[in-house]
Amino acid sequence: MSEIRQRKDTKENNVESADSNVDSEDDKSPKSDLSNAIPTGTNKAPSVLETVLNSLPDRWRNWVVRGIFSLIMISFFCIVIYGGPLALMITTLVVQVKCFAEIINIGYAVYRIHGLPWFRSLSWYFLITSNYFFYGESLVDYFGVVINRLDFLRALVTYHRFISFCLYCGGFVWFVLSLVKKYYMKQFSLFAWTHVALLIVVTQSYLIMKNIFEGLVWFIVPVSMIICNDIMAYMFGFFFGKTPLIKLSPKKTWEGFIGGGVATIVFGFMISTFMSGFPYFVCPIAYNETRGGMSIDCEPSALFSPAEYTLPACIASVFQVVGMPTSFNIVPFALHSFSLSLFSSIIGPFGGFFASGFKRAFKIKDFGDVIPGHGGIMDRFDCQFLMATFVNVYFTSFIQSDSPQKLLSQISYLKSDQQLELFQLLKESLINRNILEIGN
Amino acid sequence: MSEIRQRKDTKENNVESADSNVDSEDDKSPKSDLSNAIPTGTNKAPSVLETVLNSLPDRWRNWVVRGIFSLIMISFFCIVIYGGPLALMITTLVVQVKCFAEIINIGYAVYRIHGLPWFRSLSWYFLITSNYFFYGESLVDYFGVVINRLDFLRALVTYHRFISFCLYCGGFVWFVLSLVKKYYMKQFSLFAWTHVALLIVVTQSYLIMKNIFEGLVWFIVPVSMIICNDIMAYMFGFFFGKTPLIKLSPKKTWEGFIGGGVATIVFGFMISTFMSGFPYFVCPIAYNETRGGMSIDCEPSALFSPAEYTLPACIASVFQVVGMPTSFNIVPFALHSFSLSLFSSIIGPFGGFFASGFKRAFKIKDFGDVIPGHGGIMDRFDCQFLMATFVNVYFTSFIQSDSPQKLLSQISYLKSDQQLELFQLLKESLINRNILEIGN
Repeated sequence: MSEIRQRKDTKENNVESADSNVDSEDDKSPKSDLSNAIPTGTNKAPSVLETVLNSLPDRWRNWVVRGIFSLIMISFFCIVIYGGPLALMITTLVVQVKCFAEIINIGYAVYRIHGLPWFRSLSWYFLITSNYFFYGESLVDYFGVVINRLDFLRALVTYHRFISFCLYCGGFVWFVLSLVKKYYMKQFSLFAWTHVALLIVVTQSYLIMKNIFEGLVWFIVPVSMIICNDIMAYMFGFFFGKTPLIKLSPKKTWEGFIGGGVATIVFGFMISTFMSGFPYFVCPIAYNETRGGMSIDCEPSALFSPAEYTLPACIASVFQVVGMPTSFNIVPFALHSFSLSLFSSIIGPFGGFFASGFKRAFKIKDFGDVIPGHGGIMDRFDCQFLMATFVNVYFTSFIQSDSPQKLLSQISYLKSDQQLELFQLLKESLINRNILEIGN
Repeated sequence: MSEIRQRKDTKENNVESADSNVDSEDDKSPKSDLSNAIPTGTNKAPSVLETVLNSLPDRWRNWVVRGIFSLIMISFFCIVIYGGPLALMITTLVVQVKCFAEIINIGYAVYRIHGLPWFRSLSWYFLITSNYFFYGESLVDYFGVVINRLDFLRALVTYHRFISFCLYCGGFVWFVLSLVKKYYMKQFSLFAWTHVALLIVVTQSYLIMKNIFEGLVWFIVPVSMIICNDIMAYMFGFFFGKTPLIKLSPKKTWEGFIGGGVATIVFGFMISTFMSGFPYFVCPIAYNETRGGMSIDCEPSALFSPAEYTLPACIASVFQVVGMPTSFNIVPFALHSFSLSLFSSIIGPFGGFFASGFKRAFKIKDFGDVIPGHGGIMDRFDCQFLMATFVNVYFTSFIQSDSPQKLLSQISYLKSDQQLELFQLLKESLINRNILEIGN
């Protein structure tokens, strides 16, 4: 057993005095070892702020710190958007890595196998492998034509899945070889833990990336909806909250849930109407060959141009009686935003409940201590995760359709004689259906 | 806590007398409760066989039972192949469901939450949802054109991902609502357990299905390679085994590993050469409109027709000296089979090591007791799982290329005017590259 070095303490985990603010609803559980092993959220502000706030009572200090760091995060979000798609992608990647680290650190603490050979490296190896796979997939999709021009990159593209799978198999073999007697159960548990973390974190950030490529609006609108829902549910709950919503989070109320939902719908409608006016937000990101870089430049599609909607006759007649207009000029995207805001205000909070149940399960207060007043990155992004998938599925199901240009680039991968064969097949088919005239 | 009914005993789990044959290498662990909760493998044969074998010594009885049921399984496999693709797909589905049940049952036993409300239903709900998603995806791929003709199915196809995601969200919300105080940790652990089981079982059976569609040979060759490797490694190990291979499975030897590998390569070469001669095995499965059903009928591709391979000059000169032929008639597919047999004999066994580590981790002997002498279904299929992914990745990376027909069916999803636009774009592009003459 000499290879198992057990760390006596976890001082390097940067333990903070977390006991000052443990949620009172935390079912009076006996303090487990975990609360010492995982860096948990703190209301301690950076020392400069601390001295300024020293005069305030504790309760208000917490509020001010939380509020200030909310504003800092929102400003940071705006700056990143201003920085363009590349800045957004890098931020997504950083957030993803940090979330993964937070989840994995909890796993280490839960199974107390600090020092078990290779385990840390193995988790990170799987993170890198799955990022290689997913990011590669989307880069191939978007820059395939460009990459194909450089010979050494062509092999990477053609055999991308094969290379990724070989990397994964390497990790799998490594895991099996690293198994140490008496630690099997912990090692298998952490293996599962790593894979679930990858499933949650990496696939989501891949989908966020895909959404960004379809146009910044598909990223900004859903993310800001969740932020709006978080804040407004909190406000409504604070001022009007009476009826408890769910046992899991005793502070959540029906009033907050419904008020937040209504506010999100209104906010979503406004922000999507506003953003539809800017090509920078609505155009998909494409590789511009002449500029040699990414560009956001297009003739915005009909989805983002105001269209006239007339009410159904039965409702219109009622409206006419009261003298209200029966037709409206609305951006179609703003109508689609209803689905997004409904999802973010109904299903989104369940991401939060899930995360808070998870924290209770392992008797931790927060996922980390990166953001003063908020906890870890995962604590802020818990509701965002399902949202990315929803946006992606919604987009592919209701908005996207194969464009002739996309299919043409797929055709260009065929050999010349196959391209010619396809051309003749298409010609016949078009003539048969009278879409094309013979001799054209 | 009245909703938690704790089962006193697990008699309905059909406990068999498992203690008679616990592996001697099982690190003398104290018998945990688990060994009673999980139905474990038995060497007890069905009673008819039992009376016949009664006269044999215990050790030989085990062998005979194991041998007989190996033969039964192989015969069953052959019958299913004879039954055609539909029989194979149904078998795959049944095996998948059984494997999932075995993994999940271990989870229930490990976390001892029999009777926790909804948990069993929730696992099965996730299984059905993910099967709906994955099987739907491949059915859409292969029968899209036919399904599109029936109006009510068209919506199912168009919104397939959206429906699947909504179903998943339903399960997610259900899980959060089913959380019961004090059981959080167990519930989250089983949630992770379910998702890892889905990841292993459902995605693999989806890939197996996809492989079958590409031609039966892509299913039969890899599966029989793993079977061959299993048996031959056992044989070589039994007769020549001396050097232990891995601590995890003390009975495995280098002699068995290498002997099994060589035997698999030879076997793989032979079976793939043999099968290449039959369109039934090599043709992809397509929906035949005139027959109104699935059919396997094609002009076999060059991959399955013998071609002449000449040795590189340097090696050829050596061969000429000893008077051996320097060029051979080989089916290209038989050359590809080398990669498959290398994978199945090098990485495949790690699937087995992984499973045996997992069994040791939870102190169980087998995954189940379905097959006398073998244990559960998972015990027989542990090496098959990575193989399906490998075959699929290998096929898409090295064999498959977009065919004009496939692209044409994608084009048919476009609107008529977009099809015409694509036609003109393709025409221009072909003329520009001098592939098509102007006026054609």
